[in-house]
Amino acid sequence: MEPGTVRIAVDLLGGDDAPAVVVDGALRALSADPDLHLLLVGPPEVADGLLRVLEPDVRDRVAVRPVGARPSVPAGVRNGSAHGAVGSHRSAGLSVRGAVDAVLAGDADAVVSAGSTAATVTAAALGFGRWPQVRRPALVATMPAVAGPVVLLDVGGSVEAQPATLARHAALGAAYAAAAHGLARPRVGLLSIGTEPGKGDRARRAADPVLADATLPCGGRYVGLVEGYDVSLGDRADVVVTDGFTGNVLLKGIEGAYAMAGGPTAGSGGPPRAAALLGVAGTVVVCHGAAADYDLASGIALAAHLHRRDAISTISALLAAPSRNDQPTDTEVRA
Amino acid sequence: MEPGTVRIAVDLLGGDDAPAVVVDGALRALSADPDLHLLLVGPPEVADGLLRVLEPDVRDRVAVRPVGARPSVPAGVRNGSAHGAVGSHRSAGLSVRGAVDAVLAGDADAVVSAGSTAATVTAAALGFGRWPQVRRPALVATMPAVAGPVVLLDVGGSVEAQPATLARHAALGAAYAAAAHGLARPRVGLLSIGTEPGKGDRARRAADPVLADATLPCGGRYVGLVEGYDVSLGDRADVVVTDGFTGNVLLKGIEGAYAMAGGPTAGSGGPPRAAALLGVAGTVVVCHGAAADYDLASGIALAAHLHRRDAISTISALLAAPSRNDQPTDTEVRA
Repeated sequence: MEPGTVRIAVDLLGGDDAPAVVVDGALRALSADPDLHLLLVGPPEVADGLLRVLEPDVRDRVAVRPVGARPSVPAGVRNGSAHGAVGSHRSAGLSVRGAVDAVLAGDADAVVSAGSTAATVTAAALGFGRWPQVRRPALVATMPAVAGPVVLLDVGGSVEAQPATLARHAALGAAYAAAAHGLARPRVGLLSIGTEPGKGDRARRAADPVLADATLPCGGRYVGLVEGYDVSLGDRADVVVTDGFTGNVLLKGIEGAYAMAGGPTAGSGGPPRAAALLGVAGTVVVCHGAAADYDLASGIALAAHLHRRDAISTISALLAAPSRNDQPTDTEVRA
Repeated sequence: MEPGTVRIAVDLLGGDDAPAVVVDGALRALSADPDLHLLLVGPPEVADGLLRVLEPDVRDRVAVRPVGARPSVPAGVRNGSAHGAVGSHRSAGLSVRGAVDAVLAGDADAVVSAGSTAATVTAAALGFGRWPQVRRPALVATMPAVAGPVVLLDVGGSVEAQPATLARHAALGAAYAAAAHGLARPRVGLLSIGTEPGKGDRARRAADPVLADATLPCGGRYVGLVEGYDVSLGDRADVVVTDGFTGNVLLKGIEGAYAMAGGPTAGSGGPPRAAALLGVAGTVVVCHGAAADYDLASGIALAAHLHRRDAISTISALLAAPSRNDQPTDTEVRA
């Protein structure tokens, strides 16, 4: 394969409007990136429908991995119980597991799904394995701030705010900023409700001194507490760390505000509706359950970008060797 | 006094850019509302400076309550300790207490401060007393959503997510929506990271069934879990309940997104930078610490609005008699 070629396994059944929206997103992605190959994972009849409408040269870049039709028992059901409260898992489980299997078999480089986040994280953790340094995988989204991109995590991987998890995610975020965005010496902030030490809830007050003492990869510098608008404006930090509950609420609130303010939308420089999963040994991108076609296309583009930069392996190596951080930490002398 | 006249005690020393920004905000508010009277609480030399630039007819609507100069020991310092970590309290404590005292003495109807939220809540709770039904006062902000105003609370009054507090704030929010905005039968949602039952962290999963069983004032109907964009769009709920940490982060993130998207700003239909304090027996409005003059003016206008509608007394009465809710709760039959 020539340099730049990347093969993305796409979960055809993930998302509220799957498979139609996934098919449309795949078409968009294929036309935007001539080095992109897609492996469509899902019901053969859906994949075939897409193949039939493709021009021959594009069709050569699309393969199919058949994974049944929609299963009658929702995926993600535990212990054989099939009660109704697992609607979020819908039927995405089987196809996202098929996408993970395709990467494990060497048939694809990365996974993209707009299905249930929980089902995707489970499939990825089981299939690829977790990094030993990360107990709680994180979803990381990159916000288009005024002063440059801001890496926000967690946006939904874990939901309880634990100081140790926040500290670990600070290291993940610094490594992601460097590996995915080429940001050197990223400034890392902890999201709170004020910037003075002591502001915040118990978890934040406990995490703040831990982060102040931490050695972050890639010369990352902890800059202390930041606030909600720092995620949008980017003046104070390149990486903003929070729990997955707060991050998910904030990300969606910002999305809604963009829609309300009539600003750029997700397709054109607005807030992201795709997030990278960090903490498992594979490249996985999760799109919004209510994703539109351009969200899927942007998720596919993100997965391709991460694979081309070898970002996930780089981040894993950075985390495995935090003491190799040979750049001085200059928390004290920053402006 | 003629109907509509309202007297607001303004904390001259509250806010990062006090007193200049407070003076400018007072001028804006006075010119926007001919029935508005202001009681400026703070250093006499600052108040006199404002009085000198006023036209005589406006000057007649401004009085001064002298409260020393900036104190040398920060207000809010506990146990006589004056270590540096109380910067957030700055010197606003004395003047906001003076503003509360002015209301207690019958010289003003409501308090507005852009000083430390903690100092304002403390001064208000000590001076006015807490409502017996509310253990944790809440700050409530009204968002300008697409489908109409959305009442968001808490945005910073309490920071830990407790199911009982969330449930109590749901009642506060429903009463506020009715008393402050005339919203009948408000739809009340609990902010989470998905809409299906079971989505969210422990506090949300515990609060959801409590809210489903609660009788809310003013015919308020619990509509279940809502997400971050519902705060901006307003389609699913008129009142969105969350803890003060998440609400504060979300409010500021939405503010930043508006600034980023180039949409309307706080002065012109954008997100609020003033919030009403609920849970104490007085009308208190808190502005953003980084408030601009138009934020102060909008906080003063909010306080005037709440006083003219007798909102705080109405809400207190509604909470004291939740069983008098004679409107059916039709959670089951809503669209």
